[in-house]
Formats: sequence, C-alpha cells, structure tokens
Amino acid sequence: MSIVGLILGRRLANREYGERKIGAFEGLPAMGLDGLGSSAYGPEAALTVLRPLGAASLASIGWVTAPIVALLVVLFVSYWQTIRAYPTNGGAYVVAKENLGTNASLLAAAALMIDYVLNVAVGISAGVAALVSAVPALHPYILPLCLGILLLVTIVNLRGTLDAGRLFALPTYTFVASFAAILGIGIYNTVTSGGSPHPVVPPPHLPEAAEAVSVWLLLRAFAGGCTAMTGVEAVSNGMSAFREPPVKHGHRTLTAIVVILGSLLAGIAYLATAYRVGAMDQTQGGYRSVLSQLASAVIGEGVFYYVAMGSLLCVLALSANTSFVDFPRLCRAVAQDGFLPKPFAVVGRRLVFSVGILYLAATAGILLTVFGGITDHLIPLFAIGAFMTFTMSQTGMVAHWLRAIRHATSARERWAHKVHLAINAVGATTTGVALIVILSAKFLEGAWITVVVMPLVIVLLKAVRSYYDEVAARVREPGPLDLRETEPPVVLVALEDWNKVGDRALAFAMSLSPDVVGVHLIQLEGPDEEERHRILRAQWKKDVEEPARRAGLAPPRLVILRAGRRTIYEPILELARELQARFGGRRIAVLIPELVQQRWYQTIMHTHRARRLRSRLLKHGGPRLTVVNVPWYLDEMEAPARPRVAA
Amino acid sequence: MSIVGLILGRRLANREYGERKIGAFEGLPAMGLDGLGSSAYGPEAALTVLRPLGAASLASIGWVTAPIVALLVVLFVSYWQTIRAYPTNGGAYVVAKENLGTNASLLAAAALMIDYVLNVAVGISAGVAALVSAVPALHPYILPLCLGILLLVTIVNLRGTLDAGRLFALPTYTFVASFAAILGIGIYNTVTSGGSPHPVVPPPHLPEAAEAVSVWLLLRAFAGGCTAMTGVEAVSNGMSAFREPPVKHGHRTLTAIVVILGSLLAGIAYLATAYRVGAMDQTQGGYRSVLSQLASAVIGEGVFYYVAMGSLLCVLALSANTSFVDFPRLCRAVAQDGFLPKPFAVVGRRLVFSVGILYLAATAGILLTVFGGITDHLIPLFAIGAFMTFTMSQTGMVAHWLRAIRHATSARERWAHKVHLAINAVGATTTGVALIVILSAKFLEGAWITVVVMPLVIVLLKAVRSYYDEVAARVREPGPLDLRETEPPVVLVALEDWNKVGDRALAFAMSLSPDVVGVHLIQLEGPDEEERHRILRAQWKKDVEEPARRAGLAPPRLVILRAGRRTIYEPILELARELQARFGGRRIAVLIPELVQQRWYQTIMHTHRARRLRSRLLKHGGPRLTVVNVPWYLDEMEAPARPRVAA
Repeated sequence: MSIVGLILGRRLANREYGERKIGAFEGLPAMGLDGLGSSAYGPEAALTVLRPLGAASLASIGWVTAPIVALLVVLFVSYWQTIRAYPTNGGAYVVAKENLGTNASLLAAAALMIDYVLNVAVGISAGVAALVSAVPALHPYILPLCLGILLLVTIVNLRGTLDAGRLFALPTYTFVASFAAILGIGIYNTVTSGGSPHPVVPPPHLPEAAEAVSVWLLLRAFAGGCTAMTGVEAVSNGMSAFREPPVKHGHRTLTAIVVILGSLLAGIAYLATAYRVGAMDQTQGGYRSVLSQLASAVIGEGVFYYVAMGSLLCVLALSANTSFVDFPRLCRAVAQDGFLPKPFAVVGRRLVFSVGILYLAATAGILLTVFGGITDHLIPLFAIGAFMTFTMSQTGMVAHWLRAIRHATSARERWAHKVHLAINAVGATTTGVALIVILSAKFLEGAWITVVVMPLVIVLLKAVRSYYDEVAARVREPGPLDLRETEPPVVLVALEDWNKVGDRALAFAMSLSPDVVGVHLIQLEGPDEEERHRILRAQWKKDVEEPARRAGLAPPRLVILRAGRRTIYEPILELARELQARFGGRRIAVLIPELVQQRWYQTIMHTHRARRLRSRLLKHGGPRLTVVNVPWYLDEMEAPARPRVAA
Repeated sequence: MSIVGLILGRRLANREYGERKIGAFEGLPAMGLDGLGSSAYGPEAALTVLRPLGAASLASIGWVTAPIVALLVVLFVSYWQTIRAYPTNGGAYVVAKENLGTNASLLAAAALMIDYVLNVAVGISAGVAALVSAVPALHPYILPLCLGILLLVTIVNLRGTLDAGRLFALPTYTFVASFAAILGIGIYNTVTSGGSPHPVVPPPHLPEAAEAVSVWLLLRAFAGGCTAMTGVEAVSNGMSAFREPPVKHGHRTLTAIVVILGSLLAGIAYLATAYRVGAMDQTQGGYRSVLSQLASAVIGEGVFYYVAMGSLLCVLALSANTSFVDFPRLCRAVAQDGFLPKPFAVVGRRLVFSVGILYLAATAGILLTVFGGITDHLIPLFAIGAFMTFTMSQTGMVAHWLRAIRHATSARERWAHKVHLAINAVGATTTGVALIVILSAKFLEGAWITVVVMPLVIVLLKAVRSYYDEVAARVREPGPLDLRETEPPVVLVALEDWNKVGDRALAFAMSLSPDVVGVHLIQLEGPDEEERHRILRAQWKKDVEEPARRAGLAPPRLVILRAGRRTIYEPILELARELQARFGGRRIAVLIPELVQQRWYQTIMHTHRARRLRSRLLKHGGPRLTVVNVPWYLDEMEAPARPRVAA
C-alpha cells in the first residue's frame, strides 16, 4: 500500500456512501466543537468588556447573558424548522438561493466561507494559546503547534467525516461530562450556602470600578458575548453528512449543541456572579481565563481540574473541525452551480470533498503563518460572518413560508405555516439587530475588513460562473455528427533510432493511414553530436521501404531534420505545417513512442523527450494536429538471450 | 521574455557554438581559480604542520616548498603533452579510457567527480571563512553567504562558460596584479636590506619550539602543501571549452596557471622566511592567515592591502568555478559512454551541460548545508582525488607513449616519444609517491572516506551502464518492418457530454477506424451525481447514429459505464480488455479530447481528467493500447453570438 493509502485509508467505492454517514453521536464531535468551544470565549469576551465596571460587572453579566440565551433559543427553533424544510442541505446558501435569489445566496456563501476560514485559524490559535498559558515552556513553539494541529485535523477529515467524529468523540464527551459536573457542584454549593459559596481556590479580587454602567457598554458586551453563538448554523450546513433519516439525526445533533451551549452560558454567568469571578487582563502576567478561575474555585486544582481544563483545550483546538465538515460541503454546492471551480465538486478518495478540505487547510495555514499563530486580531471579523449567515438564512425561511402560505391547501396548513413564519421572522429580526450591534461595536476594530472582502469574494464567484458559461456556450449544440472529412490523417512518426520501438510505432502508423512519414532529428543533444543518421537511412531502405513495397504499400518516407536549438517540437511543428499545406489541409497525427516508467529510477535515466514533445505539440499544434502515444514497456520487450555485461 | 530567459539569457542555437568558446583570457578566470586559490591554503597548511618547530619552521619551509614546486614543473610538462595528444578532451577519464581500459577510466572519473564536488564546497566555505574573519559581524550568516555564492556561480555558469570567464576576470586579474606587486616589493626590500627587511607591520612572534625536526613531520608538511597543486589538471579536463585552435589556448591557460601558482608558492616561502611569518593557531582569537600577515608586513595596512586581500577573498570564493566548468564536461563524456544517465549528455539552453551544473550545485549545496558552511573536515578528503587523477592521467600517458613508440615509423619519432614517455613516467611516479604520502598522512583524518566512497561510485556508474545495455539489447535489431497487422485499431472515444468537443473527437475517430465506441462515465463526481446520461443517450441516437447511417457507415455505439470508485481509467481499461477479447485481440486506441490550457486560471478551473486518464492508461494499458490526444482550444471554438451572462 502506498504512503497516501496508509495515511488516508483505501479508496472508497460509491456504494459505501451510506455506511460512511454519521449519526448524532459522531455529529456532536464533528460539527459541534465550534459551538461548544464558543462557551469558553463568549462569556470571557463579555466579561472583558465589562471589566471597567469592577465588581459591578458581575451584576451586569446576567443582563448580557439573558438576551444571548434567548437569542440562542430563537436560533434553535428556527434552525429546527430549516432542517426539516431542507433535509438534504439546509445551509444558508441553499436556503437563500431557493428563496431570495442568486445574489443573496452568493452573499450568504461569501459570508460563510470567510467565517469558516477564520474559524479554523481562530479556533486552533485559541486552543494553542490556552495550552501555552498552561505550559509556558511551549511558548517558542506556538506556530509549529498551530500548524501541527491543523495538519492533524486536515488528515483526519481527509479520511472522512465519520473518522473525525469518532476520533474526536473522546475529548468532546469528556468536556461535556466534566463541565456538567463542575456546573452541577457549583450550583449545588451556591444553593446550599444561600448564594455565597466558599471557593476552594479563591479567584483574584475584582478591580476597582473605573466606569459606570452605560447602554453602549452593555451593547458592546452583548456583541462580544454573541461570539458564543457561532457554530449553531453548523448542523444545517452539514446535513448531507447524516445517515437516514437525516432530519432525525440533524435535530438530535442540533439539540445536543444548543442544550449544552445554553446550559454552559447560563451556568457560567450564574456561577461567575456567585463565586465573584471576573475577566482578568490578558496582557498582564498571571492571567487566567474565566473558566479556569471558575473551575478551580468550584473543585480546586486536583486531577479533575486538569482533566476538565485538558478537555476544554482539546475542544478549543479542535473547534476547527466544524469548518472542515461544513466548508467543503458548502463549496460543493456552490461549485455545482458553477460559481466555484469544478474540482470543489468532485468527491475524493474517502467520499469527502478533498479539494475543499485542502483549500481550507492551505488558507488557514497561510493565515496562521502570517499572524505567527496569534489570531486575536481576527476575532472581530469572526462573528460578523456568522450573524450575517443567521440573518440571511432566517430571511430566506421567511420567504419560504410566505410562499408556502400562498400555496397552502387547508386552513390548518396555512396556520401551521404562519407559526413557522413568525418564528423565523423573530429569528431574522433578532439576528439582524444583533448583526447591526456587532457591526457597529466592532467596525473600527476590524469588522470593516469583512465588509470590504465580502463583495470581492462575490465578484470572484461571479467571474468563475461567467467563465463556465462562456465555455459551455462555446462548445454547446454541435448539431448532427459532421462526417464530411473521412480521410485519415497524415501520420508523422517520431523516431529516435531504428529499433523495436520504432518498428512497432511505424507498423501502427501504417494501419491508421496510407500516408506515413518517419522523422528523425539530429543535433538534438548538442552541436557536436555523432552522426547516427547515415546508418539510420540505410536501415530504413532495407528494413522499411523494401518490406512495404513487397506488401504493396506506399513506402513511408524518412525525413531527417536538424534541431538547431535542440528542441524537438520546433522542427516537427514546422514539418507538420508543411505537410498540411502539401496535403491540402489534411489533419496531422504525430505518433510518439513513449517509454512507460515502471520503476522510479527510470525517471532519472531517460530524457522525457516524449512527454515534453507531446505537451508542446498539443499546446502549439492547433486543433488539426493530434498526438498519438504508443507506449512501450521494458518488460514486454523480448529480453535478449545473453544480456551484454557492462564493458 | 520569461523569468528564466531574463536570468539565463535566450536559448542559443547550435550554430552559435563556436562563438561561445573561450580563449586564455577567459580561461584563467574560468578554470584557473582553483589553482590560484590553492596558493593561499597550500603554504598555510604546510606551515601549520611545521608550527611545533617554532622559529625552526621557517628553516624547513624551503625544504618543503622546493619539492612541491618541482612537482608542479613535472605536472606542467606532463599536462602540456597530454593537451597536445588529446586536443578535444585530455581529461584523466578519456586518457585512462583510451590507454588503461574501462575500469581505470571509471576510477579516474569517480576520483574526479568526488574531487570536483568537494572543491565547490571547500572553496566557497574557505572564501566565506576569510570574509568572516575580516568582518566578524557577518559570523551569523556563514551558511547563507555560502549558499548565496553557490547560487551566483551556478547561475553564471548556466549562462555559459564564456559569461563566467568574463565576469570573473576582474577579481582574478586584480589578484594576480596585487600579489605580483607584493611579492616584487617584498623581494626587493629583502635583497636591498641584505636578507633582513624591516616589516611595515611586524608579524606576531613565532611560538617556542615544542618538537624537533623529523622526516615524518616534513612529509606531513609536504602532504599539506600539496593541496596547493589541485587545479592544475583543470585545463586538460576542460579542453572542449576552448576555441580554435584549442591546443594553443589550452597551453596558454595552463602556462598562466602554473607560472602564477609556482611564483606565488616560491615567493611566499622566500618572504615568509625573510619576514619571519609563521602560521598562527586558527582556534585562537586574533588569528590571521599567512598571506594576510605577509601582505601587511610588506605593504602595511593601507588601501592597497584591502584591495589585495579583497581580491584574494574573491579568488577563494570563486575557486568553485573550476568545478563548474569541468564537472559537467566530465559527466558529459561519462554519460556519452552510458555510465551516467543520458540527461548529463544533453547540451542545455546556453550550450553548456545544464544538468551537470545543477547536479553539482545541488550536491555541493547539500554538503554546505549539512556542515553548516564550515567544511574544514572535508579538506583531507580533497587532495586525494586530485593526486589520484594526476597519477591515473600520467600513467595513461605512459601507456600512450609506449604504444606510440611501438607504432613509430622513424628513429627520430621513436626518440621523441621516448622523451615524452620519460617525462610522463617521472610525473606518474612522483604524483604516485605523493599520493601515497598524502594517503598515509591523512588516512585517519578522513582520507579513508574517499577510499570507501570511490568504489561505491564506480559500482553505481557500472549499474547505470548495465541498465542502458539491457535497454539497448531489448529494443535492438527489429529486422524488417512487421506488416502482418494491417487492421486499424478499435477506437474508444471518451465523452464528457455531447458537445462540439465530442463531435470533433468522434468524427476524427471515424476517419481512423470503422469500429468506434463512445464511452461516457456516470457517478464520476460522487454517488449523488445527477443523471445526465439519459439526455446524452437520446442526443446520441439523433445526432450520431442517424447521420452515420445516412452516410452509409456503421453507427458508433455509446457505452455508459458506472465509475464505482470515481476513477475514470478503471472502467475504461476494463472495457478496452473486453473489446480486445471480442475483436480477436485487435489493438485499442482510446481517444481523449483535451482542453489545451492557454491561460493560467484554466489550470484551476478544470479537473485535468484528460491528463490523468492518459497517464493511467499508458501506465496500465499494456503495449496494445494507445492513447490519442485530440486537443481543443477555447479560442478556436466559435464564440456564441450572445454570451450568456452569469445568472
């Protein structure tokens, strides 16, 4: 088995497609890590904005978290409906395409693509940042660690979504169980202690208040906390990964993600207030994240603490996986509509869209390398794509239900559609408002970049489509088969020497056409080459012309040309044009014997003239010149009775 | 013009060969720098060995230098004769091949090749070491500096030997002029001061004597000093670079090298004694080379000193150029005899053997990188190859004259040959003895590596030759043209769709053979592909079968196959085998329409199926399957009247 086979596994057959699909158990690790990982940086981001309030920040965090959780519930119900309405692919691109038209769908696609690429870079670098803050000795290796994780996630996803789901199930479920336990213990302690639990490891004191509460501060905190919601759309975009019945598995996965994420957000806000845990300044030494402070306050810093924090670290680092599941599927849908290059639409070796996976890995790898593995600057860009997608998808669903109401046959059906419409309308409005809040809160911090880049992406997508339209228009509608030209082509046979290879090529040429010309080039290896062509001419007379005459055939001519600049294709092309003129525009076929390399060392031992000649002739020969490759294998040639030993 | 064209210059025609050859003016910079650079490290190496003698080392340096200069004279006369006897290529390989047989010639070739590769690495790193000891701030950049110089020398030589000779003439002739002046002033001062000149900058005191003079010490000093002689063989190996008459230009270049080198060696030894300059300990701080001490003692440390030392530095760093002139020419000769892969024998873009140049650069680059740009360890390996070459070449010449004496027609001619014989015999004996001295003096220091590597190289060379012998034996002697098989092949046409491309391919197929089959593959892009083939089948009936019937031809069949593993070649290969069986072993030609990419972005936009299919079919199809490439160009297809705009 080859190295590729060893790393990626054997090539899967189309009929294995069903067995390679996933259920909710693999769905949560495969698509949910973006959402679950968000629980770590959403509350952190909100509390960081609130830091100037000092101890008062704890009183405000509830006011910020409540609308976030409410929005989450709205999104949950909305996506539940979307999944049921679009069971094979409920992604924002498809929903927008079917309900809002091409331009809206391209906007959704652009937003999603940017979001997915950023998610990979930001997710991995957040994971590595957490790891490095836990083990400072790793600090010099931030970029190699980032790229190493990227490589791991890429390879696992090239093996297939099922493999990714299975491999990442252990850290995912460890994370869920650990934080369920921490939240449970914390809430129990809070309730039993009457609201003031005793921390095992007390968190550092909150800073002095430097500012008073303001609506703008709360809005900014809300915008920061909203990053917790990215990843909720993942299930709808990845529906084609689920096994039958996809709606059931999709619903289960979505429920798991939202329930876990919602509980974490609410639980963290509640316990942060109870245990008086605030955000610390990341630029200061001794920085610890909110979740780390909370965990050590609740359960101390024993083995369990390290298990919990380790699993969190894995979830953060692997949150990129969501992109690796969804991005290639999105690109496939876009490529099938002709807006992305065709290779994105091709199912690869392991029944996933390998080109999309590799493209995602390359782009994220470049981002990570350019930013040295520290992508904090990219976070402002990040939530915008997600909320734009939410809004587009919900708006599309509103249009969907409006149409459904128009075509409804019964009053009951109409009423049901109206309920759906209401839910998606609420979703569209709230996510739209959130988008505006986030955009205005983060515009100067870098969100403007997304606003600039997105139209450029759309222009690119449209350019791709218009290329394919042009190609299709040019080759379309040939009409009935054109049979006016029945004469076979004039065949040129490129000969290095008169040997068995040439003999076979010439015999084949004579079976194709009565007009055959042998071509031999001299001075191909340099100006002082030996003159073998005299011998060749004599052999040609004896071994080619005479047998042909005896068989009653026109003897093929031998043309000897000088390769003045040591390129083989120039003189042959010239000869082909000459012959074309002489034979009244007949087609020309150049027949090239080509040694098929069966061993690696043959690559070094031969000059690859056949290959180069073919590609040059195809490139410059024009539509009336064809190239015929006659393979020859060393093995098949009769081995000589006594192989000559090196003299 | 392309980037390659900009860097390397335009592709030269064979007829320009004569104008690209060099005379003695370019010959000295092109081939002589190895020899001239040796003057810097030969005396240094000898004086370093003599260091334990303290002040007495100066008394001994004359005893060591005298036999070295004598040996140089012997070599000069010997090579003078060799060049006259072999005016096109007097290299050790050719001389040994013609006079001593294949095995001896391969030994000479192996020794030379190793020597040339080492010379590049050692020369460049010596130059950079000198530069770094002059400008210590450059110390962190040793390896980049080495690789930069390597790149420069490689590019200049890829442009041609003439370009190298012209570009490097300035530093070469500056070096010659500067040191001629230094030696002249020094000798004048010494003579006028009665043997005790007053140094402008006094050299450091010589160390206390720690040892007494011994024969072994003198022999080791001799062996060290002999490194000064490498490079004398360069002219004989590079004879093919000289313009007409080559013997004259070769003799002039050889004379220039030997006269300059001999004067430098003798002059340095004389002045070192007069000015009391000894070798310093390289491992100590404040180290200065013998030449640097000598120059500052004679002329002080003004502008002239820096010009002289700068030109010395260039000569050292560029001494690699000798290898770049000779190694590719040696490889060419060896490859023409079939002992190296054929690409080494091909004249490149600029009428030099580009493959040899690139191979030399790559090997030396690896050596430099592995050793971090410090190749002191390699110096012991270095002189061995050179002296083995000297000995082989001289011995070959002895055999040459012996034969000449046997075939001589007159007593006078016989006598002349005897004189030649005597000279070369003296040369062979002295260089042979020197080789033994060097080998035993440096065996443990690393010379054993050369002794181990050389046989391995010879085994490799022989393996290459036996591969070519095997190939030649297999394809040789086809006998008269085999015309038993006159039936045209069964032609399979690979169709992506029924469009103008397919129409043209099919029409061409029908002009080649009455038996044409169209093949279309489904499920090539994945298990859930749309089923276009129903439309295709209907179009086929209407647009292909009916027109063919009307024209009185057998209508081509359309076969639709499932690509179960999304590879195109597997089902086509299977079909080809089936057809072969059904048509009684007829040959099969697979016709593949191929979009010729005229713009870079087309590479991204298409799936390259045609290319992959071709290479797989050639690789696995066996000798009775041929591939026909029918090119199509977007431009030539009729543009539609109104191009559809992206929807």
